[in-house]
Amino acid sequence: MSTPDRSDRIKGVLSPVVTPFKADLSPDPERFVKQCRWLLSQDVGLAVFGTNSEANSLSTEEKIELLDRVVAGGVDPGRLMPGTGCCALTDSVRLTAHAMKLGAGGVLMLPPFYYKGVSDDGLFRSFAEVIERVGDRRLRLYVYHIPPVSQVPITLGLIERLLRAYPDVVAGVKDSGGDWKNTKAMLDAFAAGGFDVFAGSETFLLANMRGGGAGCISATANVNPAAIARLHDTWKSADADAQQTRLDVIRGIFAKFPMIPALKAAVAHYGGESSWATVRPPLVALTREQRSALTTELDGQGFTMPGLRS
Amino acid sequence: MSTPDRSDRIKGVLSPVVTPFKADLSPDPERFVKQCRWLLSQDVGLAVFGTNSEANSLSTEEKIELLDRVVAGGVDPGRLMPGTGCCALTDSVRLTAHAMKLGAGGVLMLPPFYYKGVSDDGLFRSFAEVIERVGDRRLRLYVYHIPPVSQVPITLGLIERLLRAYPDVVAGVKDSGGDWKNTKAMLDAFAAGGFDVFAGSETFLLANMRGGGAGCISATANVNPAAIARLHDTWKSADADAQQTRLDVIRGIFAKFPMIPALKAAVAHYGGESSWATVRPPLVALTREQRSALTTELDGQGFTMPGLRS
Repeated sequence: MSTPDRSDRIKGVLSPVVTPFKADLSPDPERFVKQCRWLLSQDVGLAVFGTNSEANSLSTEEKIELLDRVVAGGVDPGRLMPGTGCCALTDSVRLTAHAMKLGAGGVLMLPPFYYKGVSDDGLFRSFAEVIERVGDRRLRLYVYHIPPVSQVPITLGLIERLLRAYPDVVAGVKDSGGDWKNTKAMLDAFAAGGFDVFAGSETFLLANMRGGGAGCISATANVNPAAIARLHDTWKSADADAQQTRLDVIRGIFAKFPMIPALKAAVAHYGGESSWATVRPPLVALTREQRSALTTELDGQGFTMPGLRS
Repeated sequence: MSTPDRSDRIKGVLSPVVTPFKADLSPDPERFVKQCRWLLSQDVGLAVFGTNSEANSLSTEEKIELLDRVVAGGVDPGRLMPGTGCCALTDSVRLTAHAMKLGAGGVLMLPPFYYKGVSDDGLFRSFAEVIERVGDRRLRLYVYHIPPVSQVPITLGLIERLLRAYPDVVAGVKDSGGDWKNTKAMLDAFAAGGFDVFAGSETFLLANMRGGGAGCISATANVNPAAIARLHDTWKSADADAQQTRLDVIRGIFAKFPMIPALKAAVAHYGGESSWATVRPPLVALTREQRSALTTELDGQGFTMPGLRS
């Protein structure tokens, strides 16, 4: 058995790109493509359809349409790691196959998340069915561990089984559990074998790089992309810890508010397009007072989003 | 304002109809229609696409196809209360509108269940958007409270707001929280106003009827329909408590196993069609040993499923 070539794998910092909505709550492909291009200009890859993208408030058709528009808009599909894990096996297969057809560099896959307390046997079978049905050797699958939201964890045992069955396909994990000990355990168990561990926020970026990780996929990469990417690129430099501290300050401000509405409020404010603040139910936009408190704190830190305002 | 006519509302016992799959895991419309007709023959209504239907493992397209086939198969659409609440607003609207086009007697609606800790404001807006977009005065909406699975509760305050805004549409609730105190609080707050409270299992059927409830929507109505329907129809009779005790014994046997695979194993065994045992991932079918333990216990109680075997 030959060792697979891993040199073309996605690394670094990715943003779960926030999804813009029109007044009627339909997705706005034009603003979405523009946002993707801006993020790429900041050296950040595109984990579109993540939790922070409100992806699970979008239908499969809406996601396919947005993906088509992004690629038609000239975005390099190799920089895309769309979220394609749905509750229904058939939706996950359809969306993953479509991402592969477009040449996506990888897919980030939630486990089916409605039924709780399911077994690793059932989850293994779920991922395996998607892999087999998509049937594309180019597929690079990143499993998505986010128990605070999905309530369905990805255990180390499950990863081990998936790696054994599909060593060329199962490429890594995003760990959004918020528990560094778990990320560390994944690094220790699998990183040396070429399995790419992405921290679920830049809070753990430096620790993750030092532990042999691949980068991070973080909500706040939507708003602070260049600084987070810089730490990834220079994590061995003398000022790495100072960079991490600075990232934590900005992250800490956003964390005082409901995250997704706060990200969108910042994009709206610093990009000068108020329509960005719109969220789909069940989320609720920040109040005027919350928006003001957020931007006052950010301004106090000299925070900007360079190049966003067109 | 006139009082709406509520005489045609769905009452009694409904089954979250288990969904049959073929060997390739696609839904089997023929067996599904047959099962619906058998349940109706047992005096049980059709809450198709419930939790126990593995509905959240089906795509919206698959649900629409099954609904079309059931109505084309001669089932009275007035006996249907399909689950139409999805994570994505657009899916919930599409499925609910389709159910109304077919003349469904009601719809049972989960809140969007991916994002956790969402506010009643956000949930109100979510249900309101579906109601407004479907825009059908015939719509009878039952909210679905199942916090052990959805992790997103339907509070009494949310029901109150929905009833105030849409008194003719918001028709009732299914309470699958497993906490009788909560069901009782819903009855006390809303039943006198014509809001129909369905217990989430027959365990609380007699208590629910005595408290002014409308019936129950229960997993085990898939396997023990006639006996549960009989208690609903005769709850004022002298033997009602004895009936309840007897129902609890059968329910208790199923509750020793993973519920959905156990229901399907029983349908497969007592109906003589082994293909019924198939579940979609992430669920896992009962093992041979579990199946044997289940049917041995049921046989010991003289359990049968009359008329199921064709």
